[in-house]
Amino acid sequence: MNFRLTIQYDGTDFHGWQAQDGQRTVQGELERALSLIEGRAVVVHGAGRTDAGVHAEAQVASARLSREIAPEKLCAAINGNVARDLRVVEVRHAPEDFHARYSARGKTYRYRVFNERIMSPFWARYAHHEIRPLDLSAMREAAALFVGEHDWTAFSSAQVEVQSRVRNLTRLDITDRQSVRGRGRLIEITISAGGFLRYMVRSIAGTLLANGRGEMDTQAVSRAIETRDRSLVAATAPARGLALVQVHYE
Amino acid sequence: MNFRLTIQYDGTDFHGWQAQDGQRTVQGELERALSLIEGRAVVVHGAGRTDAGVHAEAQVASARLSREIAPEKLCAAINGNVARDLRVVEVRHAPEDFHARYSARGKTYRYRVFNERIMSPFWARYAHHEIRPLDLSAMREAAALFVGEHDWTAFSSAQVEVQSRVRNLTRLDITDRQSVRGRGRLIEITISAGGFLRYMVRSIAGTLLANGRGEMDTQAVSRAIETRDRSLVAATAPARGLALVQVHYE
Repeated sequence: MNFRLTIQYDGTDFHGWQAQDGQRTVQGELERALSLIEGRAVVVHGAGRTDAGVHAEAQVASARLSREIAPEKLCAAINGNVARDLRVVEVRHAPEDFHARYSARGKTYRYRVFNERIMSPFWARYAHHEIRPLDLSAMREAAALFVGEHDWTAFSSAQVEVQSRVRNLTRLDITDRQSVRGRGRLIEITISAGGFLRYMVRSIAGTLLANGRGEMDTQAVSRAIETRDRSLVAATAPARGLALVQVHYE
Repeated sequence: MNFRLTIQYDGTDFHGWQAQDGQRTVQGELERALSLIEGRAVVVHGAGRTDAGVHAEAQVASARLSREIAPEKLCAAINGNVARDLRVVEVRHAPEDFHARYSARGKTYRYRVFNERIMSPFWARYAHHEIRPLDLSAMREAAALFVGEHDWTAFSSAQVEVQSRVRNLTRLDITDRQSVRGRGRLIEITISAGGFLRYMVRSIAGTLLANGRGEMDTQAVSRAIETRDRSLVAATAPARGLALVQVHYE
């Protein structure tokens, strides 16, 4: 029996998605809960291996169990065995060949920035705090440069070995609104791509923020993309601002 | 020098507003930070003495210091001495006779309910979880009964001694919307009054929820208000759903 799980988590108190000995991780917690139900070790595959501190509003995972369980029952059984900062919000039967990561056609991440002099306690866990004013029209102009197929060497971790650093970025929107609860300006950078490299979204967000602060003009951003030179890219934005918001399937 | 402070706090990890020995409270933290700045004990008066777990999006406090300090500097100095779940978002000079509580003409509270089968981790700290479907049109009909001047004996704590339990409730709105981050229905009950009694908002919210679940019809709600009989009122709704959102001054 193959199952598809939709999951939300507040990443603040997790060492990321991927199971690691002695660390509290999302995959680790889900595998522990499912193994209790199954009576033996269960492997859970996630669509996106989010880093420590990164949130998920609709992560997707797949897992195989040896027997049939009603999806609602399985959902309740997992939630009964994990803390409230992690919730399985939906369980469905999945085709035998469904794999949360390999079947995914793309993902959407959102990077949130609270742009006020003083940080709201209600956004402290979920947004990056930027004190300096941001020029959104400049940022939108720069954002257009990122869309399309590029080699993202400059905007990804050098530590990770991958065959190719070419990815197709299909959407990059920047919106701002007044947060009622936070009493301030909340900027949201939404990025969709067929695939992402490690730190890619946070690196793009960091460069867009440098551009918005006036530290890096459109030309400098363009040069960083074209030359693939990591030294031309601004600092990676902090994990807490990032959330996986959607996984796209056919 | 009299100062007026506007304050936000995530009430989750506070034992409420009021200073208590050996407990982490909002008043206690602010008095500690201000006493460090002043060099001797400072008393902070808050407009609303919120209970343990209750949040504030715009609490107002007043405090006297012996010397002049630029409001922005004072704001930064306090924030530098308190944890990030508490922020002074604005400091202003206040007239000598300004007192956060006695000068207030009224307050607005908001009670939030996340109304889905599964609770979102993003609302777990800030909203009450109601699994059962709520009939909003019934709740709005019942809400109208609360507006106006009433004796709130049935909807307040018996433990607190007060001269009069008559208060004028000027507004009671119920709205619902889809929370993007929480992926679910968020209901907000907004209540304004010239003054509130202890547990009054949470008691009204609890009764409105019982009405929305179909456990208490409009007549039963009306009877509870008119008879002042505590046994006719539904259970007080949990603290985490409540936030002080505005203090009204002339």
